[in-house]
Amino acid sequence: MSWNTFGRALRMTTWGESHGPALGAVVDGCPPGLALDEQAIQPFLDARRPGQSKFTTQRQEADAVRILSGVFEGKTTGTPISLMIENTDQRSKDYSEIADRYRPGHADYAYDAKYGFRDYRGGGRSSARETAARVAAGAVARLIVPETTIHAYVVQVGEDRIERAAIDLATIGDNPFFCPDPQAARRWEGLVDAARKEGSSLGAVVECVATGVPAGWGAPVYAKLDADLAGAMMGINAVKGVEIGDGFAAAALRGEDNADPMRPAAPGRADDGPQFTANHAGGIAGGISTGQPVVCRVAFKPTSSILTPVDSITRSGEATQVRTRGRHDPCVGIRGAPVVAAMMALVLADHKLLHRAQCG
Amino acid sequence: MSWNTFGRALRMTTWGESHGPALGAVVDGCPPGLALDEQAIQPFLDARRPGQSKFTTQRQEADAVRILSGVFEGKTTGTPISLMIENTDQRSKDYSEIADRYRPGHADYAYDAKYGFRDYRGGGRSSARETAARVAAGAVARLIVPETTIHAYVVQVGEDRIERAAIDLATIGDNPFFCPDPQAARRWEGLVDAARKEGSSLGAVVECVATGVPAGWGAPVYAKLDADLAGAMMGINAVKGVEIGDGFAAAALRGEDNADPMRPAAPGRADDGPQFTANHAGGIAGGISTGQPVVCRVAFKPTSSILTPVDSITRSGEATQVRTRGRHDPCVGIRGAPVVAAMMALVLADHKLLHRAQCG
Amino acid sequence: MSWNTFGRALRMTTWGESHGPALGAVVDGCPPGLALDEQAIQPFLDARRPGQSKFTTQRQEADAVRILSGVFEGKTTGTPISLMIENTDQRSKDYSEIADRYRPGHADYAYDAKYGFRDYRGGGRSSARETAARVAAGAVARLIVPETTIHAYVVQVGEDRIERAAIDLATIGDNPFFCPDPQAARRWEGLVDAARKEGSSLGAVVECVATGVPAGWGAPVYAKLDADLAGAMMGINAVKGVEIGDGFAAAALRGEDNADPMRPAAPGRADDGPQFTANHAGGIAGGISTGQPVVCRVAFKPTSSILTPVDSITRSGEATQVRTRGRHDPCVGIRGAPVVAAMMALVLADHKLLHRAQCG
Amino acid sequence: MSWNTFGRALRMTTWGESHGPALGAVVDGCPPGLALDEQAIQPFLDARRPGQSKFTTQRQEADAVRILSGVFEGKTTGTPISLMIENTDQRSKDYSEIADRYRPGHADYAYDAKYGFRDYRGGGRSSARETAARVAAGAVARLIVPETTIHAYVVQVGEDRIERAAIDLATIGDNPFFCPDPQAARRWEGLVDAARKEGSSLGAVVECVATGVPAGWGAPVYAKLDADLAGAMMGINAVKGVEIGDGFAAAALRGEDNADPMRPAAPGRADDGPQFTANHAGGIAGGISTGQPVVCRVAFKPTSSILTPVDSITRSGEATQVRTRGRHDPCVGIRGAPVVAAMMALVLADHKLLHRAQCG
Repeated sequence: MSWNTFGRALRMTTWGESHGPALGAVVDGCPPGLALDEQAIQPFLDARRPGQSKFTTQRQEADAVRILSGVFEGKTTGTPISLMIENTDQRSKDYSEIADRYRPGHADYAYDAKYGFRDYRGGGRSSARETAARVAAGAVARLIVPETTIHAYVVQVGEDRIERAAIDLATIGDNPFFCPDPQAARRWEGLVDAARKEGSSLGAVVECVATGVPAGWGAPVYAKLDADLAGAMMGINAVKGVEIGDGFAAAALRGEDNADPMRPAAPGRADDGPQFTANHAGGIAGGISTGQPVVCRVAFKPTSSILTPVDSITRSGEATQVRTRGRHDPCVGIRGAPVVAAMMALVLADHKLLHRAQCG
Repeated sequence: MSWNTFGRALRMTTWGESHGPALGAVVDGCPPGLALDEQAIQPFLDARRPGQSKFTTQRQEADAVRILSGVFEGKTTGTPISLMIENTDQRSKDYSEIADRYRPGHADYAYDAKYGFRDYRGGGRSSARETAARVAAGAVARLIVPETTIHAYVVQVGEDRIERAAIDLATIGDNPFFCPDPQAARRWEGLVDAARKEGSSLGAVVECVATGVPAGWGAPVYAKLDADLAGAMMGINAVKGVEIGDGFAAAALRGEDNADPMRPAAPGRADDGPQFTANHAGGIAGGISTGQPVVCRVAFKPTSSILTPVDSITRSGEATQVRTRGRHDPCVGIRGAPVVAAMMALVLADHKLLHRAQCG
Repeated sequence: MSWNTFGRALRMTTWGESHGPALGAVVDGCPPGLALDEQAIQPFLDARRPGQSKFTTQRQEADAVRILSGVFEGKTTGTPISLMIENTDQRSKDYSEIADRYRPGHADYAYDAKYGFRDYRGGGRSSARETAARVAAGAVARLIVPETTIHAYVVQVGEDRIERAAIDLATIGDNPFFCPDPQAARRWEGLVDAARKEGSSLGAVVECVATGVPAGWGAPVYAKLDADLAGAMMGINAVKGVEIGDGFAAAALRGEDNADPMRPAAPGRADDGPQFTANHAGGIAGGISTGQPVVCRVAFKPTSSILTPVDSITRSGEATQVRTRGRHDPCVGIRGAPVVAAMMALVLADHKLLHRAQCG
Repeated sequence: MSWNTFGRALRMTTWGESHGPALGAVVDGCPPGLALDEQAIQPFLDARRPGQSKFTTQRQEADAVRILSGVFEGKTTGTPISLMIENTDQRSKDYSEIADRYRPGHADYAYDAKYGFRDYRGGGRSSARETAARVAAGAVARLIVPETTIHAYVVQVGEDRIERAAIDLATIGDNPFFCPDPQAARRWEGLVDAARKEGSSLGAVVECVATGVPAGWGAPVYAKLDADLAGAMMGINAVKGVEIGDGFAAAALRGEDNADPMRPAAPGRADDGPQFTANHAGGIAGGISTGQPVVCRVAFKPTSSILTPVDSITRSGEATQVRTRGRHDPCVGIRGAPVVAAMMALVLADHKLLHRAQCG
């Protein structure tokens, strides 16, 4: 089955293919009375937009969003918000030579096995272009959780991982890599450019931190905050791993080293809740936020579209080889950062509403 | 909000607390006509059952399951299957001294922040005891996907990771660690026993492989097979990370090295589908199974209950320290293996039914 | 598919068959901190309980409810509330002679067509005995909407309909028919007793009124308050029609006669909202409550189990006749009244929480 | 909360307001490989389209549908189908005089009470214009259930009810009332025209019959086929009552008179299933289809927009009167017929897929 709705209280339904006339999202359950217009959404789409540097695909898309419903006199009405982005640069001919064969590492074979058809135009629904709709919806979600601040940034490209101490969130926007370490950003220029020239590709790791999340969000035991985040992140194109807090590193720790000790609230700051002297848990315990920063990390595989020929088969089952000439990101994880942030916003907004439903 | 139903077409609703009279699961949507009785479920519960070796908690629970509905004359009827497990060894007094303080690393504070109460009896609903219900429901799910074989096993305890070459699935049941490497199993005896004696605890990584999954299961783009697996696994108590296929390692690969080349089906085996010469993707592309083995890895943090005192606060916000004397697993990830397998079975069964709904 | 969960924010999952060991409900999403014990539920079950007069089935069931989870120290915890009712009087032998034939008007044939089996023991899952679980869950739901008062009562038995002017809600409990008109109650004694003696059966209409519902509950456009009520009521065994407000009579009215004029709030009662001088709409406009009493009416068909032989077929398709000797209600609509009230409570509680999620 | 998704396996999400730029539906879960283009949808929209006779609103809308996704090379792909209809005739000025007051009988007050705003442009989201999206989605749903034939027609306008014997389904399209009785159609011309001239309005009853529904569709006990139909129909604008089969009339019947006797399948027609010699149940027993025609009846109240002044209040709570000058249907139930048919198609298609999920 296809299942194109995300969320429980705040629900986003997306539609559209890479090379259809448009794509979009319907956001349902948004509280009324929030100030919203296209200008509140567009900057997030611009951050994700392709074609802005030589480090991303050269597909040129304005990615201009239109709000078709759910807003009246500049405010949300509580009714569904329909967002539409027209596709303008759909050079389908690029894909003609792979119309009848499966691109390894892509969803081509799996989609055909499931649905019995081959939409060869850039992957159709499986294209990462769909994430534009998520980013637009995520911008709406952010309005619902103004108490939070969400940063997503790339902490690893290929084998080059930045040092935690070097992270300076203020510099994320200063480079085309959403990199919080200016030195690493310079290194990555060479790294990504070389991969691009070689027709190769690189993986990446994106980290996302949300501060200001109050204690109490999360819906155990099957819509835990961390479980919903994991599902949200793993569902992004090219993602193969998700960690909360220390993640896999926690498996190698002893209990004493993994503890997050608590201390009384700071004097005169009782409303801030207790102070934690560590955050191995990434701000979530038992599937519920603790009031600490919510931290997750997301691993992106290298783009499957490469110029090196790879063994494959045709739709009729014969041996062939595929090399992909289309316009692609040499490191798809980079443009994944705004998508990760959008999914974080959607999950947090959903859980704020869910929490309010039960606990008032 | 609490949200205690898992799945879309096959739905499991669980209930029960660590120290209440019983816990259970209602499994809805199960196809009719499948042979089912308590004996088909009990072995899976026995594998997860505590108190069987000195390496797990000494809580003694028979974990005997009763089927209360949904089965008639030895076969499923298509109506909801109610499974109940009575709690028999509920030594609540163990917890009296932490009744008014929060155990660091546990869900105590988060639950109180959310719901405004403190069920100090072993964590109440947040206890890993709830996973017994998942294992029981997972046994039902397995009946729905007889074409698959699911193995879950521990590949890392603390810092000790087994070699891939050493994995022999036939040996998983020969040791108390669900370890597929007999040599590692012997090492872990010492490791876990030492941690137990020291009142410390260890993390672990569980790997789960499902073979026999046909190409085509998965519901893009918001119920992708890998996204649903990630949500299912991250929702297990103490889990902090999930990987599909190469996972985080894929982030460090180049596109050429991450490719999963395809070749025509073996002669006379057209029904088996194409042959893949690698499985970096872990059997899932675009959120849909490819016919290769589905592979995921799950990181468990060390048990938070340790004898070392950790700074904490009382319910009224005063500084205190907590050391946990209760009966606990020194390495909770070990008993996590049967739970991981159960969640894999539940996700696969759900997606088999979902696929059938849309694609016949 | 079977689908045994009702509700969106407050969710009830029921299980159990007429002649299994027990039946029950899991109530999920209930706010924490509400006082709850078995005594808060039992009176509602007692009102629905069979065997209390000669006007209902002679099956003797204590219908004693047990709370198995979700309550700690007398209060709801916010975690799932598991309710169980054991079946004690399961005289299955009564059904032996219809084991291989379909009872006309019952769900026997339809269940077999769907699931491929015949649970001849009193209808199995299709038995109205399942509604005990709804009544128990409905008692929990009432705790969530203490601002409302819900009355359900029988306004028609067979062709005998009471006059609106004769309705006195204070008398509902004074007779075995949930009849708000003492004179009608006396007439119905004869009517129902005659039907019982003749082995015949009668239909009925139940009306349900909820006062105290504030304006603003309802989730347009696909979970409107009236739509959810209609689905809830039509899903009760033997129900064939549902009306809100004037219902079918409204179809014969002109716009002027169907208007519900509004006037300003009474002096000093601004919080009560506007005054309406009519309530043709039954307290719901555009799928949202208006603050007026919510009114619905529910039509029950006559019990299908009658002593008159009716043409039928066997499982193998041969002609036969069926007369049903079991213990049955001569007028199933009577015991439907507490079930209608329970479903009203469940829908209102669900929508209170849904409203709170979006609108704070 | 707003809740704008309908269905479980086949899911329709609609968006749009009466006077926004457009409205639409996203249809998710549709099987792949079905032939679909705009021409397959447009005739259903044309049937519902306003402005085609003096008996309906004079708003002129082309209601031209565009398919924006989910179709490739003329066939459904299994991915979400986005349908959009632009609003072209949005004379908002008509509504200026009611911008600050509530129209009695409309959802104006209820929406304001819920969401805290007043979209005075023709009712905003609460307008029946939203049903255009349902009709478009319903046309897609029909493709999923080609084994069925669905007819919806008006059986009562005001107090004038047609005789069952006079029903001739072949004549439904011959008059502007979806009336299956040519003589009644002529009577209704005068009736509706008089109401229109007087600035009054009339209610109506629509009947819908689906033939060809196989036995076995329906998802007890909380997504019974009849319960889902009731919810679907009651959620249509202006609907106040729903009946299945004999409906409220069944309440006045005795068991013998309400029985639907069964006989063996006709010789050589075993696949057709048993023959029923009556259909009081309307083709549904225990919430599951029986193979007989599925029959429901739906009561529409008279349009609330009338020229007679009705007492009302302003947003600030002062007394006023309202008479509605906009362009309205004098009998909204008439154009309700295509909407009823669309909802029948959506429910049947949903349940076909649900049944297939569980029962193969």
